[in-house]
Amino acid sequence: MTKTLVFVRHGQSEWNLANLFTGWKDVDLSEKGVQEAIEAGKKIKEAGIEFDVAYTSVLKRANKTLNYVLEYSDQLHVPVYKTWRLNERHYGALQGLNKKETADKYGEEQVHIWRRSYDVLPPAIDDETFEALASEPKYKTVPKDLIPRGENLKTTLERCLPYYEDHIAKDLLENKTVIIAAHGNSLRAIAKHIEKISDEDIMDLEIPTGKPLVYTLDDDLNVIEKKYL
Amino acid sequence: MTKTLVFVRHGQSEWNLANLFTGWKDVDLSEKGVQEAIEAGKKIKEAGIEFDVAYTSVLKRANKTLNYVLEYSDQLHVPVYKTWRLNERHYGALQGLNKKETADKYGEEQVHIWRRSYDVLPPAIDDETFEALASEPKYKTVPKDLIPRGENLKTTLERCLPYYEDHIAKDLLENKTVIIAAHGNSLRAIAKHIEKISDEDIMDLEIPTGKPLVYTLDDDLNVIEKKYL
Repeated sequence: MTKTLVFVRHGQSEWNLANLFTGWKDVDLSEKGVQEAIEAGKKIKEAGIEFDVAYTSVLKRANKTLNYVLEYSDQLHVPVYKTWRLNERHYGALQGLNKKETADKYGEEQVHIWRRSYDVLPPAIDDETFEALASEPKYKTVPKDLIPRGENLKTTLERCLPYYEDHIAKDLLENKTVIIAAHGNSLRAIAKHIEKISDEDIMDLEIPTGKPLVYTLDDDLNVIEKKYL
Repeated sequence: MTKTLVFVRHGQSEWNLANLFTGWKDVDLSEKGVQEAIEAGKKIKEAGIEFDVAYTSVLKRANKTLNYVLEYSDQLHVPVYKTWRLNERHYGALQGLNKKETADKYGEEQVHIWRRSYDVLPPAIDDETFEALASEPKYKTVPKDLIPRGENLKTTLERCLPYYEDHIAKDLLENKTVIIAAHGNSLRAIAKHIEKISDEDIMDLEIPTGKPLVYTLDDDLNVIEKKYL
């Protein structure tokens, strides 16, 4: 029996609009981002996809995206699980910086490396920023040594994947239809795993915002079909 | 150590506005109902209450109320559990009827009894309506013999209470701060239990819509203080 897994990447946030590095900064969707989520919900309704369970991060731009998707596909009753493990890649000390200013400060080449390499870490956040992050209510049930000071896609994948394996893959193996509403890099990390994409090729995978991506998987959770709604 | 339990009763729905019996009919909030939920969220933020966990029904007017409350109190990251056991009282064959027409058909006295008595059942829904209800996706994990054809407050309480005891009371005993966003009668049922209100007096308890009700409980979950925000 085939299984269905749907990704929705949240749309424009207020910081995307301002061209800032966002990462774990908990910024809201812009009005355009809200509209993208509503459209995604309508497309899912048109496609007649009924979810058994939904997963998202603990960042509000993903939470709100999921809420709009469920509302506009008429399935607000679906159980939702929120986890820090599906958060966006933590962009370290680059978070909150303008992308142009960062290029001026560190050089275009270095910024390109931070953005496009699989395993180069961005500059880490300082202790004060780390302590402030670790003390946010949303992370109070997370062991402090698991909270990152900055991530590349490799370390993002290493913290996403245990959650995928223990919860999401388990649901799929039980023939549940699953939606994940999350972020460019947490979705990319899971896509890398299920599509078996190499370290070299993964950074070329761009999942568009607001367009539901529907995977059909076989009994071993290999991809049979991949399409955008 | 005292524990905190907050109730939010959803605000105006489209059918409240039209003065229809609603029950398990999954109608949306009206614009006024959305505003009530947003105000409730702002009040909770002002009061500085941080939730560890949230509970709601599988009816969208409660789900949306909770989403707005969490959004406007800046805690969309809080885990949410949705259960049919927190649904509104099932109003049987009265669902969808105008309250005035119902009074004309059955008599004012009979309607008063159905609305205000603790243990008189409303007329049951017919088999066709029951089958349609039982086949809705939101009830597909509920054993069919648990799905009601019509409820009084007594039977509403009997299906709410096991969930309260097994999940919500457990969280409170673990010193978690809990919010329940639900309905007039499912909240009344839990209030009857924790406030130890008699069968005779419970129908006089009216929980206002959109006003967060904050209970402070002792180690045995007895009420120490009850206040509205």
